[in-house]
Formats: sequence, C-alpha cells, structure tokens
Amino acid sequence: MDIKELRINSNRFKQSHDEICKIGATAGGGVNRVALTDEDRQARDLFVKWLKEIQCNVSIDEMGNIFGERTGKHPELPSVMSGSHLDSQPNAGRFDGTLGVLAALEVLRTLHENDIKTERTLFATNWTNEEGCRFPPVMVSSGVWAGAIALEKAYQSMDNGGVTQLEALEQIGYKGTTPAKNWPLHAYYEYHIEQGPILEKAGITIGIPKGIVCLHWYDITIEGQGDHVGPTPMEVRRDALCCAAEMILKVKGVPDRVGGGMVATVGEIHNSPNSRNIIPEKVHFTIDIRSWDDDQALKAWTILEQDFNEIAECNGTTVQMAVTSQVVHAPFNKELVLHITESAEALGYSNQDIVSGAVHDASYINQIAPAAMIFVPSIGGRSHVEVEHTDWDDCVAGANVLLQSMLKSANEIWFYS
Amino acid sequence: MDIKELRINSNRFKQSHDEICKIGATAGGGVNRVALTDEDRQARDLFVKWLKEIQCNVSIDEMGNIFGERTGKHPELPSVMSGSHLDSQPNAGRFDGTLGVLAALEVLRTLHENDIKTERTLFATNWTNEEGCRFPPVMVSSGVWAGAIALEKAYQSMDNGGVTQLEALEQIGYKGTTPAKNWPLHAYYEYHIEQGPILEKAGITIGIPKGIVCLHWYDITIEGQGDHVGPTPMEVRRDALCCAAEMILKVKGVPDRVGGGMVATVGEIHNSPNSRNIIPEKVHFTIDIRSWDDDQALKAWTILEQDFNEIAECNGTTVQMAVTSQVVHAPFNKELVLHITESAEALGYSNQDIVSGAVHDASYINQIAPAAMIFVPSIGGRSHVEVEHTDWDDCVAGANVLLQSMLKSANEIWFYS
Repeated sequence: MDIKELRINSNRFKQSHDEICKIGATAGGGVNRVALTDEDRQARDLFVKWLKEIQCNVSIDEMGNIFGERTGKHPELPSVMSGSHLDSQPNAGRFDGTLGVLAALEVLRTLHENDIKTERTLFATNWTNEEGCRFPPVMVSSGVWAGAIALEKAYQSMDNGGVTQLEALEQIGYKGTTPAKNWPLHAYYEYHIEQGPILEKAGITIGIPKGIVCLHWYDITIEGQGDHVGPTPMEVRRDALCCAAEMILKVKGVPDRVGGGMVATVGEIHNSPNSRNIIPEKVHFTIDIRSWDDDQALKAWTILEQDFNEIAECNGTTVQMAVTSQVVHAPFNKELVLHITESAEALGYSNQDIVSGAVHDASYINQIAPAAMIFVPSIGGRSHVEVEHTDWDDCVAGANVLLQSMLKSANEIWFYS
Repeated sequence: MDIKELRINSNRFKQSHDEICKIGATAGGGVNRVALTDEDRQARDLFVKWLKEIQCNVSIDEMGNIFGERTGKHPELPSVMSGSHLDSQPNAGRFDGTLGVLAALEVLRTLHENDIKTERTLFATNWTNEEGCRFPPVMVSSGVWAGAIALEKAYQSMDNGGVTQLEALEQIGYKGTTPAKNWPLHAYYEYHIEQGPILEKAGITIGIPKGIVCLHWYDITIEGQGDHVGPTPMEVRRDALCCAAEMILKVKGVPDRVGGGMVATVGEIHNSPNSRNIIPEKVHFTIDIRSWDDDQALKAWTILEQDFNEIAECNGTTVQMAVTSQVVHAPFNKELVLHITESAEALGYSNQDIVSGAVHDASYINQIAPAAMIFVPSIGGRSHVEVEHTDWDDCVAGANVLLQSMLKSANEIWFYS
C-alpha cells in the first residue's frame, strides 16, 4: 500500500485514551496523575503493556523515561522519535502530554498492523515528570536525557513530603538501568495540545510552531515604609503596594507599546507585612516576558526599567530589579516543520504557523537534534484544568499528521546512503 | 502648694522608662514585649512594685488588667483613671503604650511625694494585650472591662502555639480574681504617642484628639481565569491581578476625589495560584477607610463600588465586594478635651486639635465613660518599629498635661456635692 494512505485508527486511539484517563480520573472529568505517584505507575504500566503487544523493545532509563522501539531496516542510522509525558498537574486535564504519548504509540500500532518497516528505527517515548509540580524543575527527564540537567541533581529534587525524585522512581519501580543519555536522532516530533486559544479562534485544525518564544524572567522588589494606616496621611505615605500596582499596569501595557505579539505577565506577588491596617512596606513580584522576537522582549524590559525607576521615585520607594533568566527564542528545525506542513496539506487539514508560548520536552530535545511540534486546538485555550478539552476529530487529525511526518523522516536515508 | 504648679519629675520618669525598656530590649534599640510572655510579666511586676512603693492599692482582674488605686477624699464618687498598655508588637518601639502607663504612675507619684489628696479616687491602669498580635483581637482586655467583649471569648483566643489567652494569663501568674467589669468613671485619660507624622511636621508639642475616626473595612474578591502565561495572548486574558492593580490605584486616589482629610488603604492582598507562569485567577484584597466624616467615608465607598464594577467588566472578571465592618467615628468627651486644652495652654505647650486615626484602649472606655486622649509627636511618624521615638521633652510635656488634666477631673465634685 501507499504509505501516504495510512491513517491511524480513531476508535482504537480513543479507547486507549479513555482507558488511560481512567487512571487518576477526577470527579470533574479531568485527571490527577502527578509524576511518580501510583497513578503515574499505572499509566506507565499500561503504556509498556501496549508497546509490548506490538512487539516493541521497551527500555527504561535511569530517569524512568520509557522508550518503545520499533526497529527499522537500518538500525545503525540516527532514529526518529516522538514523545511527550503521561504525568499531569494536580486535578488537570485529559489531553496535556497524554495525547502526544498515545499518538506516538498509535503511529507504531498503525505501522505494526500494516506490517510496514521503515528505513530508520522509530521510538515512542514517555518522558518522566514533565510538569515538575511535585519535583521541580519542569521537563527534568528530557533535560537529563539531552545532557542539560545533571542526573544527580535531578535525583536529589525533593517533594513537599521529603521524598526525593530518586526514591520516588524506586518506589514505583521505574528507576531503569539504561543510561539517561541521548543517542543520535534524525528527527524528534512532539504532538501536543496548543494550551492557548489561537487555533480554536481561527478555526484551524493544525498549528505548526515555528519554534519556542524567548522567555525572560525578572524579579522586582519594592521597599516603602510600613506605617500605621490610621494616623498616616495619604500625602506622606511610601506605599510599596500602590507602587507595585502602577508597575503591574505598566507590564500589562508594554506589549502594545513595543508593537504587540508578545506577552508580559505578573504572576506572583508577595506583600509584607500583608496586614489590613499596616501600609505595605515591601512587595516582591515576578515578571514573565515571552516573544518570538528577542529584541522586542529586551526593548520591553528597557522600557519597564525606566518606568519602574520613575514610579519608585514618585512613590518615595526604592526598587530593585533582578534579571532572573533570559532564554533566547528557539526555532524548530525548518525541514521537520516543512514535513508537518506538507503532511497537514496532503491530509487536507487547515493549518497555520504559530509559536509555542510554553516550553515542552521538545525544548530540550531541540538543543541536541532536529525537532518540531504539532499543535491541535484547545477549547477556550484552557489547560491544566479539568475542563481542558480538544475535539476528538482534531485529536485524530494531529495523530495522522504525526504519522505522516514521522514516516517522511523515517524513510529519509539519502543523506546517509 | 498650688496644684497648678505641680510638675512630674522628669529624671525619675526617665529612669523608670529606661528601666522598664530593659525588659525585652532589642539590639536595634526597641523592645520585644509581646502580651503575656515572660517579658510582659517582668514589666508588670515592676509596675506593681512601683505602685506599692507609693502605697497604692493594687488589684488584678480576671483579664490581668492591673489597677493602681490612690484613694481620694470621696471614694464613693466615680473615679478618674488613666491607663495604657505595657505589651508591645514584636520588635517594636519603647513608647507605644509604655509611655502612657508610666505617665499615669508618675502622676500618682507626684501626688504622693507632694502629699496631695484629690477629691476623687485616681487609678493608674495597665490594660492586658492591647496589641492583639499574639492573641487577637486588639484591645481585648479594655474591651472585656467595658463589657464589649465576652470574658469567655477572650479566654479562648489562641496563639500560634495553641496556648489560649487564659492559659497564658495563668502561666505568668496574672489571672486575677477581681471581676473584669467596669465601675463608674468620672473621667478616663489616655496618654499616647501620635504614631503619625502630623505633630512633628507642624512643630506642635501636644495633640488633642477630638475623637477617633470612623473605620470601614471591606473585602474584595476578583475572579478571572488562570490560563498559561505563554500561549495566552494579552487581548483574551482575564487577569485578576491586573484588575486588582487598577482597583488599588482607585483606592489610593479616592481621598482626593471626596475632598481629602481621609485615608484609604489596601494593606493585604492574596493572589492565586500565585505562580510565575500562570495568569492570576483569583485575587482577594482588603480596604481600610478612615475619616472623621462618616458620610465622606461612605461616599468614597460608593465611588469605589462603581469603579470596581466598571474595572471588572473591562477586564472580563467578576468582583465580589463585602462590607466587613463599618464603625462610626467616636468623639471624645468635650469637657475632658477642654481640660486637656486648658492644661496645655496653662503649661505653655503648643497644641492643636487632631483626630486619632488608630484605635486605643480609650476607644472601648469611651463607650462607657467620659474619655479623652493626649498625643505627643512621633519622630517621622514611625511606630511599631524599633526606631519609634519621641523627644524626652515632649514625653515630659505630655505627662504634665496628663497630671493637670487628671487633677481637674479629680477635683470636680460640684456635680455631686
């Protein structure tokens, strides 16, 4: 048969999705499957069982990453991988991560049932603890695998109950023996829900991220004077929270000022002494700026720095501004992006360029190998909540695009032949 | 001698102040003498010792309030009292509360050494736990004594270590047997530092509060939507913290809009989930509005309610506004205020009307008896901090005004004779 005619089996895909979502299912229709809990173990066991059913070689590495291997005609060539994560945020949705793992499995199943052997070896992967909510940081295991995070550091990460990530891996029986170390990849695809509202609003089925936006984090600390509320007239106050309020609105307005298309957010704020009848003395807040255009993000920060100094001076406060991290934007591999675009077109799915505003396991793999992602619409842009949802037709569409894109990469051997 | 010539002994007053401030003295020059701690007990023991040295009758009531009684010629007449509190906020100053208790003691000492017997009986009082920082609420023991707070409720108040106020009273040996219940007072004076910057700025020695401002508390809760920071464009966000920031600036600006002379403050804010990369979903903040003019404060709230509804609508959020409490302004007794004014004038001290922006033990006593207060300047308006300071000359001036005012009230017997 012409492999361009291959399609994943929507019913089987949905049955697997429904079955795995029973593990840690919440009353509100979501899942609670935090990394390295017993729910995570059950989902892993199911994934391993399904991989073995289609005669995949299954290996577990030192970080608990699960690799299902379908050997190609030329196993000596760099392989083609698709993966995502089965762990969830607490009381989160059914699609984030899980969809990508099951679609990669479904690709292998489709090849298996059609008895198709690709030139290159294929892998369906589950990365351990992408969410980082129990053991920080996020994407720790793809990070270790890509050589960006030290194994020992990852092992020592501790949850609120004093359990280390190493202990938790051992407890659920997923501390494997394979070194958590990358091997040559010809292509890495990650299929994921958008987690934003753009595709749904535009009525588009497939989003093709050209890469991951830059990510700048800043920490702002304002010091004012913590006087009694009652006896201190308005005109002599040095109120750190009023000062912060002005700054927060500047952050909100800065994307428009630098030309739009970027996001700027104050997500975290700590007020001290945070007492009803004491004028706020000290406020700490965070800024998160993301843009495809690094220069635009830097320009926004320059504007904010100047604004903040002026605001602090007007309010009689002092302000300290720390650059916590500035990660440049990361384009995905142009050839893989083209494979995805051509696959979506050939399948007749509407598609558009997009950027990934969030980081994913693909962020680390992108540092060591050609990588790209496939997005499908999130209803209302909601994610990490129980109501997180994607229409099943869209889920199937994304999986078919993944299948066709992986086939393109898996059968590319002219570079090496 | 003419009692109008009587003056307190500045050196003795200062020695007592220095001695009591050694108890719980902090490295930063303040005191840490939280209610019902061993430091509080030591300060109480000293106060009781000093009262007994001048042959006062000392009684301790069920709330640990200490009353030093200097019997007058007509003990059957309503008595004249002055009191304040020896407890402090954690790592606070040397003057808040302590100055008032020691000045009342100094008045009795001055009468004792001059062998002056007043018509009415005089009391120097230490109210237990004015600050309320270990066992809420504030001013609990003057509240119980005035009949505004139930004794049982006060006893049950618990600190962070699970110790009840009753247990703490027993532990330091200050659960007395006298019922914590008021007796007829002809006059109650409370001498206190201003805790604001007005007197110092104006170069005035004595502030004479015409009463206590109204106190309105509101609780505001904003609900937005907690989406991912990265994939959610600015224009579709429903950011509860941006919404709160606009509201906080409206609160800051409202005193000017209603004509000034009032204060409005957001002291407390809670942001949820308060995570660097999640758009704030829910924000709760408090508003404290104080004014001598109740109508002005109510007008401010009406303006804010309308503003908040508009801001919430513009931001796509919902807002809930709760009236937590609205206490009307409380004028002090006009005759006592006049006694204080005349005393300050006769002593040649500059003086001016003021309002008390904070509540004091006098707030409760004012509900059951004629009451008034005497303020002296706070350097820089600072209070509840180690640098809290008042020039000693001003401390002496306030004590002399207290002495003369108490004498006026103590010798007023024509109403009853």
